[in-house]
Amino acid sequence: LAEPLLDRLCVIGAGHIGSSILRAVNEQGLAGSISVSDASGAVCTRIAELGLADETFLDAKEAVAGADTVILCVPVGQMGALAAEIAPRLKDGAIVSDVGSVKSAVISAIMPHLPPYAHLVPAHPVAGLEFSGPDSGIARLFENRWCILTPPPGTNPRAVECISALWQAMGANIELMTPEHHDLVLAITSHVPHLIAYNLVGTASDLETVTEKEVIKYSAGGFRDSTRVAASDPTMWRDIFLNNKEAVLEMLGRFSEDLTALQRAIRWGDGDTLFNLFTRTRKIRREVIEAGQAGLPPPDPPGAPAPRARKKRG
Amino acid sequence: LAEPLLDRLCVIGAGHIGSSILRAVNEQGLAGSISVSDASGAVCTRIAELGLADETFLDAKEAVAGADTVILCVPVGQMGALAAEIAPRLKDGAIVSDVGSVKSAVISAIMPHLPPYAHLVPAHPVAGLEFSGPDSGIARLFENRWCILTPPPGTNPRAVECISALWQAMGANIELMTPEHHDLVLAITSHVPHLIAYNLVGTASDLETVTEKEVIKYSAGGFRDSTRVAASDPTMWRDIFLNNKEAVLEMLGRFSEDLTALQRAIRWGDGDTLFNLFTRTRKIRREVIEAGQAGLPPPDPPGAPAPRARKKRG
Repeated sequence: LAEPLLDRLCVIGAGHIGSSILRAVNEQGLAGSISVSDASGAVCTRIAELGLADETFLDAKEAVAGADTVILCVPVGQMGALAAEIAPRLKDGAIVSDVGSVKSAVISAIMPHLPPYAHLVPAHPVAGLEFSGPDSGIARLFENRWCILTPPPGTNPRAVECISALWQAMGANIELMTPEHHDLVLAITSHVPHLIAYNLVGTASDLETVTEKEVIKYSAGGFRDSTRVAASDPTMWRDIFLNNKEAVLEMLGRFSEDLTALQRAIRWGDGDTLFNLFTRTRKIRREVIEAGQAGLPPPDPPGAPAPRARKKRG
Repeated sequence: LAEPLLDRLCVIGAGHIGSSILRAVNEQGLAGSISVSDASGAVCTRIAELGLADETFLDAKEAVAGADTVILCVPVGQMGALAAEIAPRLKDGAIVSDVGSVKSAVISAIMPHLPPYAHLVPAHPVAGLEFSGPDSGIARLFENRWCILTPPPGTNPRAVECISALWQAMGANIELMTPEHHDLVLAITSHVPHLIAYNLVGTASDLETVTEKEVIKYSAGGFRDSTRVAASDPTMWRDIFLNNKEAVLEMLGRFSEDLTALQRAIRWGDGDTLFNLFTRTRKIRREVIEAGQAGLPPPDPPGAPAPRARKKRG
């Protein structure tokens, strides 16, 4: 039998992404043993019930002891304090990674706390749905999705290789870029789309002329898509906007400028401007479909075994 | 055997909505006979191949002859000219309906052309996907969706009853409102969501710092939802914005105002404003789900018969 990819994996934060990783790692047998930490006792209990870890800990410090790979799956605003907390207990040569949707700020928050003998390999799997909590994880969430790695210059190549191999084993494709470029790309492909969805749902529910009940009743005309995106975790998203301020403000400025031009076209009855834009955007959709990024993740195949309870060690 | 609901139905425009109606009417046997007109000869041929009509006509005037119910399924900008064209050939007592996403402008465009012996019952099924053309129709598209009727004061109640019964037979729920209120409700639940999706996709594809290829590659972070909405038919949507100008500009003004406030919250690091909005919007999603409006239409059940070729009349 082949050795598992990792000796001991520690996942901190067992929400939608954390528990998706746990499901994938368990199904594929990618780790010899797994420790999980979550600040919520209920979450720890649920992870144990689901058989997704060998050991669960309320205290992150205890969870990292002995782990060769530690993945931080908490909101980006909590990364710094968490890194400070676990740093003294990291094993010599441990690889620390994360799944944060912002990279520059997260690297600045984590890096200063790590001991010289630990390796930081920041990662961002561009995947995830609007759900939260340990029960919302999906083993195949990362299949055919991109995982972006932003290792700081001088990072040990074997550490990068290890995190790449882990994500590839979970079905993802790997791309490397600088944290600054990552934050720009994600500002337009993820952060601004979320902000305008949140904003639209807010605007709609504040109207006096149209009731909230009507907005919900007739949401199949397009609004419902925004409500899905705007159902994403509030803490996670607050932290993203506070920690990718510059790139989000830059992209938002462009969005608003363009929207003002469209508003003017509507006011002046300039149908050509509208028609030309709407034709151009249709082409982008075709390219998203061709790139295999249009759909939801594939459902787990019918009859797939539920993750089995793991044997407790000694 | 029960009589079909309609004696002879005429559908003009066999795109996504028109061909969905044809599929539903055929499957449920709701019409004794069906005539279809489309300005495209290829579409007429395809509808005949699919067995969705008894007769197809390039010329709308010929298609309406003898029909007791005529449904106009063309972009709202074409409704007036179409009404003028068919009016002289309408049968005495014919009911004319439409599926336009705007109601005040469509009523103003159609009404003056109709002879006194025809009955106008404007309708808007709040359903539809981003697809176009006769092959994109879905028999169950209207199931558990709302169809809004906006009959002008004094409309014959039996005509309203007939169109209600038709939509109910196709699985829709009926709501009546004034055309003005319809246009406000749809401006926020459908028109502005489409406009900001089109705008976002346009902004994203115009960037110099992030390539179009990157935007597509990493679209699973939220952008892909906008690309779906922004793939909707350009002519249809140009016409919607040009014909619901006032309500769209009003809702867009509010959206932009609110977005500016969010932008300011991000710039000043006001996490509470963001968190409070994101918590409030999450609740709306739950209500959309509870109202049964969250999902795509149910797929046709496996093994459902393909629409059968209709017998040609003598």
